[in-house]
Amino acid sequence: MGKRDIPDIVIQRLPVYLQALNQLLREGRGIVSSAELGHLVDVSAAQIRKDLSNFGGFGKQGSGYNVISLIENLRAILNLNQIWPVVVVGVGSLGQALLRYQGFSRKGFEIVLACDNNPDLIGTSISGIQISDIRNLEADLGRLNIQMAILTVPAGCAQTVTDMLVSYGIKAILNYAPLVVKVPNNVHVINIDPVVKLQTLTYYLNSED
Amino acid sequence: MGKRDIPDIVIQRLPVYLQALNQLLREGRGIVSSAELGHLVDVSAAQIRKDLSNFGGFGKQGSGYNVISLIENLRAILNLNQIWPVVVVGVGSLGQALLRYQGFSRKGFEIVLACDNNPDLIGTSISGIQISDIRNLEADLGRLNIQMAILTVPAGCAQTVTDMLVSYGIKAILNYAPLVVKVPNNVHVINIDPVVKLQTLTYYLNSED
Repeated sequence: MGKRDIPDIVIQRLPVYLQALNQLLREGRGIVSSAELGHLVDVSAAQIRKDLSNFGGFGKQGSGYNVISLIENLRAILNLNQIWPVVVVGVGSLGQALLRYQGFSRKGFEIVLACDNNPDLIGTSISGIQISDIRNLEADLGRLNIQMAILTVPAGCAQTVTDMLVSYGIKAILNYAPLVVKVPNNVHVINIDPVVKLQTLTYYLNSED
Repeated sequence: MGKRDIPDIVIQRLPVYLQALNQLLREGRGIVSSAELGHLVDVSAAQIRKDLSNFGGFGKQGSGYNVISLIENLRAILNLNQIWPVVVVGVGSLGQALLRYQGFSRKGFEIVLACDNNPDLIGTSISGIQISDIRNLEADLGRLNIQMAILTVPAGCAQTVTDMLVSYGIKAILNYAPLVVKVPNNVHVINIDPVVKLQTLTYYLNSED
């Protein structure tokens, strides 16, 4: 089955299942039912079974999922059995916070490059990562064999920088800029603009409160 | 129709449509087809029409959507015609970056409170927001009538802090902690852990590259 044949929304749930399974593993659990896993991640048990059936199922009817085995399967499906080098493009306050965040390397993502066009930042280091001149981006990406970018530039230049990244071979972008960026079909973008997420939450709130 | 009757996934797409429509408006566009809007946000035209039909439709067959009118309808559906006060809980490097981010207030969200348990931070100010002692959280939330929280605490205390927030009346949480937090049915959480998003993207990458 081609990677494009499984809906993106299914793929987006797999890392959430993985996160919950890792929590269960830390709590010493060996087996989990689709009902319990579903309760943890706010997805129906039927949806979990359907999602996993895209990849073979991994559970026997009535006996639940083996936690370790399902973790291993999900890690393989998501290509997580390797370290992924990542570039952070745009080193403003958010980019700097991401460079300081310790959570990436523990989960298989290593920020190996950060770049900006601000001469005051270029050449300085944050968490051991030296900030490069964005004008050297093409050479840096090629040298470091990077496919993934975290985009933390202002909205005004987000599309221009995205076009650059795509032309230099970037295949996946985590986009913090408050803008829907356009990319070719072979490039994947996930938007992580916090305002968009807050705007989802307000739907559920009562204005009269 | 009750708010719980429309799937969360539909609600999550509405702010993305709104973002794209605002871009079109800035480009001077008056009318957009579901096909073009769909192309911008990587959703099928049929899905967009189906999503909007939950709320009445807003378009005439064959004539496209009026951009301004659809923006106004989506803003009303999402309760965006007011300023929402927000608390940032946990003022580490990510919390600090969010306090410095100018994008919230422009989009109707005002960070009116930030709190931490670090005595070196309490009493200092970032972007004009004084950091409060988390021990005063209950009184502060009540005084400021806050329903929304941005959670930027370490994973180890994320559930404890979430339980506190819920008991103090918080109804919506944007969770940056790398943990699935449990909340009652009347509280809504969106997880925005960047690692989970990166783990979705690696599915589409080729390990052999």
